[in-house]
Amino acid sequence: MASTEKRESGSSAVYAVVMAGGSGTRFWPASRETRPKQLLPLAGGDEALLAATVRRLAPLVPPERVYIATGARLQAGTRAILPDVPAANVLAEPVPRNTAPCIGWAASILAAKDPEARILVLPSDHHIENEEAFLDVLRKALDAVEAGNLVTVGIVPTRPETGYGYIELGEPLGHDVRKVARFVEKPDLARAKGYVEGKKHLWNAGMFIFRAGDMLAAIDRAMPELGEGIRAIQAGGDEALAKIFPTLPSISIDHGVMEKTANLAVVPGDFGWNDVGSWESAWELAAKDEAGNALPSAAGQISVAVDSRGNLVQTSDAKKTIALLGVEGLVVVDTGDALLVMPRDRAQDVRAIVDALKKKGGPV
Amino acid sequence: MASTEKRESGSSAVYAVVMAGGSGTRFWPASRETRPKQLLPLAGGDEALLAATVRRLAPLVPPERVYIATGARLQAGTRAILPDVPAANVLAEPVPRNTAPCIGWAASILAAKDPEARILVLPSDHHIENEEAFLDVLRKALDAVEAGNLVTVGIVPTRPETGYGYIELGEPLGHDVRKVARFVEKPDLARAKGYVEGKKHLWNAGMFIFRAGDMLAAIDRAMPELGEGIRAIQAGGDEALAKIFPTLPSISIDHGVMEKTANLAVVPGDFGWNDVGSWESAWELAAKDEAGNALPSAAGQISVAVDSRGNLVQTSDAKKTIALLGVEGLVVVDTGDALLVMPRDRAQDVRAIVDALKKKGGPV
Repeated sequence: MASTEKRESGSSAVYAVVMAGGSGTRFWPASRETRPKQLLPLAGGDEALLAATVRRLAPLVPPERVYIATGARLQAGTRAILPDVPAANVLAEPVPRNTAPCIGWAASILAAKDPEARILVLPSDHHIENEEAFLDVLRKALDAVEAGNLVTVGIVPTRPETGYGYIELGEPLGHDVRKVARFVEKPDLARAKGYVEGKKHLWNAGMFIFRAGDMLAAIDRAMPELGEGIRAIQAGGDEALAKIFPTLPSISIDHGVMEKTANLAVVPGDFGWNDVGSWESAWELAAKDEAGNALPSAAGQISVAVDSRGNLVQTSDAKKTIALLGVEGLVVVDTGDALLVMPRDRAQDVRAIVDALKKKGGPV
Repeated sequence: MASTEKRESGSSAVYAVVMAGGSGTRFWPASRETRPKQLLPLAGGDEALLAATVRRLAPLVPPERVYIATGARLQAGTRAILPDVPAANVLAEPVPRNTAPCIGWAASILAAKDPEARILVLPSDHHIENEEAFLDVLRKALDAVEAGNLVTVGIVPTRPETGYGYIELGEPLGHDVRKVARFVEKPDLARAKGYVEGKKHLWNAGMFIFRAGDMLAAIDRAMPELGEGIRAIQAGGDEALAKIFPTLPSISIDHGVMEKTANLAVVPGDFGWNDVGSWESAWELAAKDEAGNALPSAAGQISVAVDSRGNLVQTSDAKKTIALLGVEGLVVVDTGDALLVMPRDRAQDVRAIVDALKKKGGPV
C-alpha cells in the first residue's frame, strides 16, 4: 500500500468519472425513470450500487475527485446518496447521448482543471466482490496510461455469456497489460464457448482509463465533429451545454473512439465482477437463509418462509411482514405502488411487464 | 311469491340470528383477530360475506329483525358493515362459548320480545350462488317448524368431502322435508364416497330453523344447566351476561342439543353453497380473466398478467399496480402490513404461517 501511494502521489492526480445516467427497466418495480438501478441497493444490504461504486474507489480516488455523469432528472437523487461528493461534481447531461459525448465532455472538464488528469471511467451499477483486487487492477491500468494508451479493464470470463461484448487480447505490453487486438460484438453461444476455452478473450465491462488529453486527442482523430462540439461546450458554459450537447452524435465510446484508436491496452481483471443485470443477479448477490431465500430483514421486520426455497423478496416497507408458503424460485417485489411476482428464471422478461404497463398507463 | 308472502304474514314473525363470532386464521393476512373472515369480501366484489348474508335474507327477514351474534371485540366492525341492522341487534358475547350458549341466549332474547318468534340461525361467512333457491328452502324449513320440529338445512353433497359433518336422512315428513335419522361426524374418504353415492346423506351447513320456545324447551331437556343459565342472563341483564355467560358449557348446538332431540327435521338444499373455507374457495368464487387469474380491479387500478394462469391476487391498496409474469396457481395477498405468497393448493396450510408468525410476534 505505502509504495503504491508513493507512486500515485508522484504521478498526476487520479479522477473518476462514474457513468450514472442509466434508466433501465429490468428492475421494475423497484427501478423507475427517476429511481434507476444505480440508485438501488441491489447487491444486498442497503448501499445503493452507485454509493458502493464511489465508496470502493476511495483508497484510490477521494470523493472530491469523483465526478458523476448522470441525467438532469437524476441529479437530485444522485446527490442525495453521495453526500461526500461535491454537488458541483454531479454533471447533468441535458439529454442522454450514449457514452462517447458523455466521456468526452467529462474529459474536457477535467482537462481544463488539470491537464495531467488521469481518469477512471467506471460504470455505476455493477457489483465487485473483491475490492482490493479491483483496486490493484485499476492501479495497473493507471500505470499503463503513462505510455499514452487508452486502457480498458477486461473481465476474465467465468461462463460462455452471450450478453456481453468481448475484448480479444493482443501482444503483451508489460506485467498484466496487453494490447487490445480488437473489440468483439456479443457472440453466439458456440463462439462464446470458444472464447472461454481459448482464454484469449475478456468481457468488456465498460471501464476505461486514460489521461484526459489522450482521450480528447483520440476523439479528435476518430470523431472530429464530437471534438468540435466538446470544445464549444467547454468554451460556452451552461448555455452551450444545453444547446450543443443534444446535437452530439449518440454513440458509444467503444464504437465511436476505442475501436478506431491504435494505442489500446487492456488489463485483465478477476475480482468477482457482476453486472447486476436482473433480479436473478440480485438474488445471487443477496444474503440468503439456509434454504436460499433472500428475505427482507430490516430491524424489527418479520419474514417467514415455510417449505420455500430460493426466493427473493423485496419490499420498500421495512415494517411489512413477509410470509412465503410452499413456493420456490420466485421473485416478489413490493413497492409503495406496485407488486411484481415472477419466477427467477423469467427475470430477463421484466420488460414484457413494463411494455404491458406502458400500454395501460401503469407506473413505469 | 304473492302466495308465499301471504302465508308468511299469516304466521308468526320470522327473525334471523346470524352467527358472526368467528375469528379464523385461514384467510391470513386479510383476516385478523379484529377483522375475521365474515367481515371480508371473500366471494368476489366488495361485499363482505356477512353483508351478503344479511342482504340475501331481506325478502324473508327485514334488517330490523336480523340479529347478529358476535364477539365484543367485533361489535364495532360488524355494525359498520351493516348500517341497516339496528345497533341493538348486534349481540356481543362476552367470550366465545361455541354455538349452544349463543343460540340459546339469542332464542331467549327473541322469545321475550315475541313468544311466537320463528328463528333462522345462519352462518355469516358462507356463499350462496342461487339466492332464490336458498330462500325457497328457508321457507320450507319455516313451514316445517310449525309442527314443533327443530329444522336444519342439509346441503346436497357435490363431492366426497371429508371436512364436513353429514346428516343422515330419515323418513319423509312432507314435501321436501325429512326426519333427521342422525348427525354423522366428519367421515373418512371411503365413507364420504359412500354418502355421495347413497344419496341418503347431506352436508351439515350449520343452519337451524325453529320456534324460539321449541329451542328453549329442547335446551331444557338436553342441557338443563344451560337452560338455567340462559334464564338467569335474561333476568339479570348486562351484569348477569358478563358474569354467567362465561360459565355456560362450551358446546355446539349440534352436539349439545340437536343430537339429543327427537323431533328433528331436515330440508335438502341445492343452491350453490360454498363455505368459503380457504383462499382456494375465494379463487373459485372470484371473477377471473380468460386465463383464470383473479386480479384486483378497483376503478383505475392496473393489473397485468403475462404468461400467467389461475392466480388469485388481493391487495388492500386499490391504487396498487399488480404484475404477474410466468406464474401459475398462486395466491398473493397484500395488506397494509403483510404479504403472503403461496400456491393455491397449499391454501389449507395457512395456519402454518400463522403459527410461525405467532412465535416471531408477527401480525396475526
